[in-house]
Amino acid sequence: MDVSQLFSQRARAGVDPELAIILAGPPPGTLGMTGGFPNADAFPQEELTEITARLVRDEPGLALQYTASAGIPSFREYLVERTARLQGREPAYEELMVTSGGMECLDLLCRSLLDGGDPVAVEGPTYLGAIMAFRDYGAQVHGVPMDGDGLEVDWLRERLDRGFRPKFLYTIPEFQNPSGRTLSLERRRALIELCRAYGVLIVEDVAYRELSFDGSSLPSLWSLGPDVVVQAGTFSKIFCPGTRLGWAIGPAPLIAQLSSAKGGTDQCAGALGQRMVEEYGRAGLFGKRLPHARALYESHWVALSAALCRHMPEGVAWSEPTGGMFTWLRMPEGLDARSLRPAATEAGVAYVPGAPFYVDGGGANEMRLSFSSLDERSLAVAAERLAGVIEEALSSSATAATAPR
Amino acid sequence: MDVSQLFSQRARAGVDPELAIILAGPPPGTLGMTGGFPNADAFPQEELTEITARLVRDEPGLALQYTASAGIPSFREYLVERTARLQGREPAYEELMVTSGGMECLDLLCRSLLDGGDPVAVEGPTYLGAIMAFRDYGAQVHGVPMDGDGLEVDWLRERLDRGFRPKFLYTIPEFQNPSGRTLSLERRRALIELCRAYGVLIVEDVAYRELSFDGSSLPSLWSLGPDVVVQAGTFSKIFCPGTRLGWAIGPAPLIAQLSSAKGGTDQCAGALGQRMVEEYGRAGLFGKRLPHARALYESHWVALSAALCRHMPEGVAWSEPTGGMFTWLRMPEGLDARSLRPAATEAGVAYVPGAPFYVDGGGANEMRLSFSSLDERSLAVAAERLAGVIEEALSSSATAATAPR
Repeated sequence: MDVSQLFSQRARAGVDPELAIILAGPPPGTLGMTGGFPNADAFPQEELTEITARLVRDEPGLALQYTASAGIPSFREYLVERTARLQGREPAYEELMVTSGGMECLDLLCRSLLDGGDPVAVEGPTYLGAIMAFRDYGAQVHGVPMDGDGLEVDWLRERLDRGFRPKFLYTIPEFQNPSGRTLSLERRRALIELCRAYGVLIVEDVAYRELSFDGSSLPSLWSLGPDVVVQAGTFSKIFCPGTRLGWAIGPAPLIAQLSSAKGGTDQCAGALGQRMVEEYGRAGLFGKRLPHARALYESHWVALSAALCRHMPEGVAWSEPTGGMFTWLRMPEGLDARSLRPAATEAGVAYVPGAPFYVDGGGANEMRLSFSSLDERSLAVAAERLAGVIEEALSSSATAATAPR
Repeated sequence: MDVSQLFSQRARAGVDPELAIILAGPPPGTLGMTGGFPNADAFPQEELTEITARLVRDEPGLALQYTASAGIPSFREYLVERTARLQGREPAYEELMVTSGGMECLDLLCRSLLDGGDPVAVEGPTYLGAIMAFRDYGAQVHGVPMDGDGLEVDWLRERLDRGFRPKFLYTIPEFQNPSGRTLSLERRRALIELCRAYGVLIVEDVAYRELSFDGSSLPSLWSLGPDVVVQAGTFSKIFCPGTRLGWAIGPAPLIAQLSSAKGGTDQCAGALGQRMVEEYGRAGLFGKRLPHARALYESHWVALSAALCRHMPEGVAWSEPTGGMFTWLRMPEGLDARSLRPAATEAGVAYVPGAPFYVDGGGANEMRLSFSSLDERSLAVAAERLAGVIEEALSSSATAATAPR
């Protein structure tokens, strides 16, 4: 039997080959600025050792058992309190549920909202996993351009005025993956008003929200417009990915639908992880540990930023993240980040080319650099190597341009 | 904004209301034989306390991090060895992957195999979650009748001879949910041959396989026909559900596709749980603990079985499981398990009506009784109460039948 003959249309469509390259990790011998994994030095293993042992020993009937699809009630209550404290607005209990990480929340949203052919709006560039998820459900994905202040709300207004009606707009307002950019407060307010006027649901992905270098934060979109926003959060970047946990906050009928859909994915998020995060949080350990994670990523960025300034040739620009794990680098027009990859591998540095993060072309001369994993010294070397590759490409293209035909 | 206006067709279709009743738990004041939760007394919390603390403390970079979608390599290797030992056939490394429980494996199979309108064959009755999953992907689900030896292979042969071509056949060969029946060895061999001849993929759900009362087992379908079977397994019943872990074993191209699809669900199963099961298994603790779980469920069944024999009126029959957590009870024709529910609640006993477990009608006079949660004494009381309800219904219907018109 040739099982591949049995594959569904979505299976035959396959995945973006760039994802396979990212998942395979940087080529051997290179300094990799490719992945978006959080740095394991920021994981709270000491605090968790005692908590986890206690839960397994004392609460097997709860921490090792199935849970309701929406999550363990005490954990949902803790998340309600935490949201009120961190976002200045308290969701109702029925407006919040537990998910198995941020990506699963996007999957539940797709199941609940998308029929084949539905239009969806995303930032250009945006998270590759989101593009793939939306397309996997047959959505027509449209890009909204960004500048240094995040997605261009005026551009979106013009399209909505002219009749564009996406099922939802997907945005990562803080330290965006991949661009590192943050949506300004003024634009947040304008976006909420605009989407409310046109009845467009906003899907707000706050994966990096709590990782600002200075600990500050702008109001979340959900806190500004709880009637038109569903927020997808994850504990992967501020706790650890190993327990697969996140949350969704939004209008109660949508949360009820997402919970129902979760019965068909993994039935419930792992109870042990839910109780781990709850105990960790109620002991005040997020407040104790997050400053360490923020300082770690800031120190990495400072090192990378200094090396980019020192080594990059004229005409190369990059975003200035104030948190998170990514910067977005633009080379002069005409250079192609995919074509440069063999030279970069040769030089011992790896990045992710920009084009796959756009849904409608563009980004050939752009790339994502992650500063989460490499230490400061390695980031400086990686930037210098990358600068050398770009410089070489620029001088070859200059030679080519002036060469006699 | 009325978000429910935005719901997709599959969301509007909703879920079987019986599922909501099951998930809500038995009515207050009743002895519930409703749920399929494993008994927490069978969870290995003592052994796990030390293992879990050690993993969190010593391996944060592995046990708290993301993993490859197919699972942590060392855990996959352990599962390969374990399968060889328990099923007498060793899968290749590429033929096995880690899932986030058995239900997620079914979801990955649906994504990978089903287009709208595809026919799928299931046992009648079968697992409600599977019926919902297949229908959620637009499948046309057809039932194959069962008798005491499991699904009727001759019946299936006749349909295949006449042109029926399901995308796959879903079966739970051991101590089936909901019927408690086990597929005989002779039928296993015949089923493999039949499906191989017609190119029909078999999805084998082995959720209860290791819970035979006497520790014995028949050859798995996968071991008999690795070319035509994909096996979905779960650690929820033999370890605990709190870490959301299972496995898929099947032809390598299908496993590669399922792993790729998992990038769009939760990206990977939780690393901590994967390492917990691996360490637990490598320490030989499954072999130590499983006899305890088997003895517990057997003792429950013995108590329930004795009480059914003692109290049930003539004309009531039930399956004789040799493992697992369920028996399937059939009342005389004319009685309706749904209609009897108010009287049962009144009498202080709860069960799951049989009809929702069938895809094409029938089962009105049948019901599922779970013996996993209640203790021996409570099961005996529950059976006596249920017998009283049925007896009462029989005598009313006899009265109605002989009453003057």
